[in-house]
Amino acid sequence: MRLGGNFFEDLGPGQVLRNPVPRTLTEGDVALYIALTGDRNPLFCSDEYARALGFERAPIANLLVFHIVFGRTVGEISLNSPGNLGYADLRFLRPVYTGDTLRAETETLGWRETSKGDTGVVWVRTVGFNQRDERVLQFYRWVMVNKRDPGTPTHADDTPDMPAAASLEHVDFPRITKFDRAATGGDAMWEDYEPGRRLPHPQGMTLEEAEHQMATRLYQNTARVHFNQHQQQSSRHGRRIVYGGHIISVAHALSFDGLENMLGMAAWNGGSHTNPTFAGDTLFAWTEVLERIDLGRPDVGALRLRLVAVKNIDPSREEVSLRVQGDDGRERYHPNVVLDLDYVALMPRRAVAA
Amino acid sequence: MRLGGNFFEDLGPGQVLRNPVPRTLTEGDVALYIALTGDRNPLFCSDEYARALGFERAPIANLLVFHIVFGRTVGEISLNSPGNLGYADLRFLRPVYTGDTLRAETETLGWRETSKGDTGVVWVRTVGFNQRDERVLQFYRWVMVNKRDPGTPTHADDTPDMPAAASLEHVDFPRITKFDRAATGGDAMWEDYEPGRRLPHPQGMTLEEAEHQMATRLYQNTARVHFNQHQQQSSRHGRRIVYGGHIISVAHALSFDGLENMLGMAAWNGGSHTNPTFAGDTLFAWTEVLERIDLGRPDVGALRLRLVAVKNIDPSREEVSLRVQGDDGRERYHPNVVLDLDYVALMPRRAVAA
Amino acid sequence: MRLGGNFFEDLGPGQVLRNPVPRTLTEGDVALYIALTGDRNPLFCSDEYARALGFERAPIANLLVFHIVFGRTVGEISLNSPGNLGYADLRFLRPVYTGDTLRAETETLGWRETSKGDTGVVWVRTVGFNQRDERVLQFYRWVMVNKRDPGTPTHADDTPDMPAAASLEHVDFPRITKFDRAATGGDAMWEDYEPGRRLPHPQGMTLEEAEHQMATRLYQNTARVHFNQHQQQSSRHGRRIVYGGHIISVAHALSFDGLENMLGMAAWNGGSHTNPTFAGDTLFAWTEVLERIDLGRPDVGALRLRLVAVKNIDPSREEVSLRVQGDDGRERYHPNVVLDLDYVALMPRRAVAA
Repeated sequence: MRLGGNFFEDLGPGQVLRNPVPRTLTEGDVALYIALTGDRNPLFCSDEYARALGFERAPIANLLVFHIVFGRTVGEISLNSPGNLGYADLRFLRPVYTGDTLRAETETLGWRETSKGDTGVVWVRTVGFNQRDERVLQFYRWVMVNKRDPGTPTHADDTPDMPAAASLEHVDFPRITKFDRAATGGDAMWEDYEPGRRLPHPQGMTLEEAEHQMATRLYQNTARVHFNQHQQQSSRHGRRIVYGGHIISVAHALSFDGLENMLGMAAWNGGSHTNPTFAGDTLFAWTEVLERIDLGRPDVGALRLRLVAVKNIDPSREEVSLRVQGDDGRERYHPNVVLDLDYVALMPRRAVAA
Repeated sequence: MRLGGNFFEDLGPGQVLRNPVPRTLTEGDVALYIALTGDRNPLFCSDEYARALGFERAPIANLLVFHIVFGRTVGEISLNSPGNLGYADLRFLRPVYTGDTLRAETETLGWRETSKGDTGVVWVRTVGFNQRDERVLQFYRWVMVNKRDPGTPTHADDTPDMPAAASLEHVDFPRITKFDRAATGGDAMWEDYEPGRRLPHPQGMTLEEAEHQMATRLYQNTARVHFNQHQQQSSRHGRRIVYGGHIISVAHALSFDGLENMLGMAAWNGGSHTNPTFAGDTLFAWTEVLERIDLGRPDVGALRLRLVAVKNIDPSREEVSLRVQGDDGRERYHPNVVLDLDYVALMPRRAVAA
Repeated sequence: MRLGGNFFEDLGPGQVLRNPVPRTLTEGDVALYIALTGDRNPLFCSDEYARALGFERAPIANLLVFHIVFGRTVGEISLNSPGNLGYADLRFLRPVYTGDTLRAETETLGWRETSKGDTGVVWVRTVGFNQRDERVLQFYRWVMVNKRDPGTPTHADDTPDMPAAASLEHVDFPRITKFDRAATGGDAMWEDYEPGRRLPHPQGMTLEEAEHQMATRLYQNTARVHFNQHQQQSSRHGRRIVYGGHIISVAHALSFDGLENMLGMAAWNGGSHTNPTFAGDTLFAWTEVLERIDLGRPDVGALRLRLVAVKNIDPSREEVSLRVQGDDGRERYHPNVVLDLDYVALMPRRAVAA
């Protein structure tokens, strides 16, 4: 691995990188994840609840698995990145438990220099493995990376196709016979989520520098923009930028109110960090129900959901449009919208409701 | 559970609520509790010390058990609360260990609309259970709750009697034959605490937003006033309010200097959060010895103590009165006093001192 | 132990103190250590990597062991200290694992009142033990301590000799047959570190109040200057001072980039906190290779390294001198240099590189 991390010039397609450093997940990570994000899904914080659903004990929260695997890849892919652009076809392939050790491998798939010439976009596919070399996670992402030498054009122009949606073939949730709604506090089951409906989540969460820094360090994600105020002072924003994954976690935790019975994430079809977030911002979230997917089983169904995070506007009190028209007549994301995530959640069906 | 939480109108007496979400306690929670509060009681951080006192290993700190059980009840009782008013007859009924899963049940006991008509007081009794359905904690509390519709009077006026003191019948500490004072650094035993004495605790602790938010999220306590600066900006204080339980924990941790040999809390007779605390405030504490209670055993006695937390005045350097006279001639708490807790601690007796 | 801690007058030589409070290390401490410092050494965060090197599972990070043992001693030695001055002959004697309970004993070795008469320097030697009474750590330190009565001279003037270097006789690393560089991302082995070379570490880390307070509380280090803004307001700096050990940990974590294959610290020859650090400062670090020490084994060698931490200047972009000449013509540390640590690291040799 290159000291100071790779730059755009180093990340041409066709490389397969074994990303350091292997990491064992522990109860400490789980508690910190709750303390930093506010996660309340009982599947991830109650051994009893998890056992009642057929697990040996509480598995690790999907997003914590994502952050740990993602964190492995930063040194080689995005240490010198001003921002992550998007995700596609992310699949949570297998439960991870405390004591499991995760590692990652990343393949570079394409690259394109931007018109300004000082950065480029790199497309990669990352797979996370456990200590038995079983795949636990895979995802595609594309990320802006600084050039080492902005003055010398690379003519890199190789944009790969990204999957439009995630496969759900891997979904293999234990068979449920009875789902206890008193444990979650939520009444709504799979059948109750009508496509087209927008669920406002009533809470808001203000972010602090110490919080996002601790979260990002926990994942051993070392991207410069999150930690180095001395450097960031002279950047465009003048401030440290919150790791986009922290925004996903906080927004997802806020969405528990309204999606209480969610059994976890199965996949992401795609997602974008649409605007930067900074310490001091207050995050809110809403969820749009995009699709109800019948998995052909009587106990559990899937929901395709759009999780939108917005800062400093409370969408449960004030109407917020996802997109607005700019002065130039072009549509873009509302400047307060910071996340647009299209994902698939698992939900118990009415037949098992107790 | 109602999305956005219950309001005063929803909380009439006679309801028995199974509070979501069950929560397994772990070593991660224990470490975070120490990092966030500064707790140093060796019973809760040393397996060796705990074994020497007859425990299988270090139990979970009493106050961490309290916060976890309390946190369960927030969604239904106090999500829309501007402040918790008081506690009565709290009993720590049984040790809790890492790996135990806690849940809570809350019964609504009474309610009274305030004269202004925009809020009301609700009285409840909460019981915390472990995974074997054994009671580990019980307490009464009363809490201010916002009305959904401030314009429509409820005429609610049903104030229940609260127990004046906690029963100590449950106290069942293992028999001690030898107590090693070198492990705690404290000389004073049960007999050395003279009723009427005030113990100043020499240290002070400044609170940060990230700290109280992390603590409160760890307990999965989601009350709005602690996290949502966007909303709090237009509130009376203009700021996030620190969870009152965090104040109890920090003040109790400060009180270790002077109460080093305390074996833990047995019960609270009562307690009040007398003024709000904000990030940036520095907490200090003193303890008044109210009563020495002989438990009829030679190794361990009980002390009834009054723990007072005060902000931004160091009571070890400057005399602070608990109560002061206002301009209206009425006595009230000193404006810097933020906690007045009347509790019962267990202390080893001289007969076992080594 | 004295309420409010010992003062200089209490710390004359010849005392042997059993420092409270025993502390069991857990997975929670490990996760918090990573979240607070950014540590990435896989030996301390991957059970698989540790097993491949002959350990039963991941041991506790050396510096976390140091902080926990150091924290035990603060109540008696440095609660009333304006600053720790130096360390000598520190040795990590034995691996510590989660579940181990550490305690400390400290011997006072010498004292000298300062010319101004309001403080004095105290020299001590501390030994950390595990629950089997095996020594896991030892170190000498000297520390400035406030006098209780600045007006009364003590005439204390007894300066002991400190060891100039740490013994390495205790070094007993498991025999390695194969070292997998893909797990660390680093190419350089023991032979590649040329004495005289300066390694700039490319990253910077901005410190927050909540972070250093959480770290210092985790170690149950209660020194007043780190936590009590109410008191510090009227001090010379007007601010809380970051625990010097946190600076060592953050600087060491930054030094992972360039020293990826380090197997851990074996010893410190000496070290000084050369200037105070405050929240808001951004830390950078460089390492100077002082000496390559052949341990007489083919798999592992030792490196004597000088780790320098500097604040608010990026030494990878701007030349920084360790020492500068003051207006008085005397040489002193550059005002932005905050740590100068002379330590011995273990490194795998080329013969085992894979």
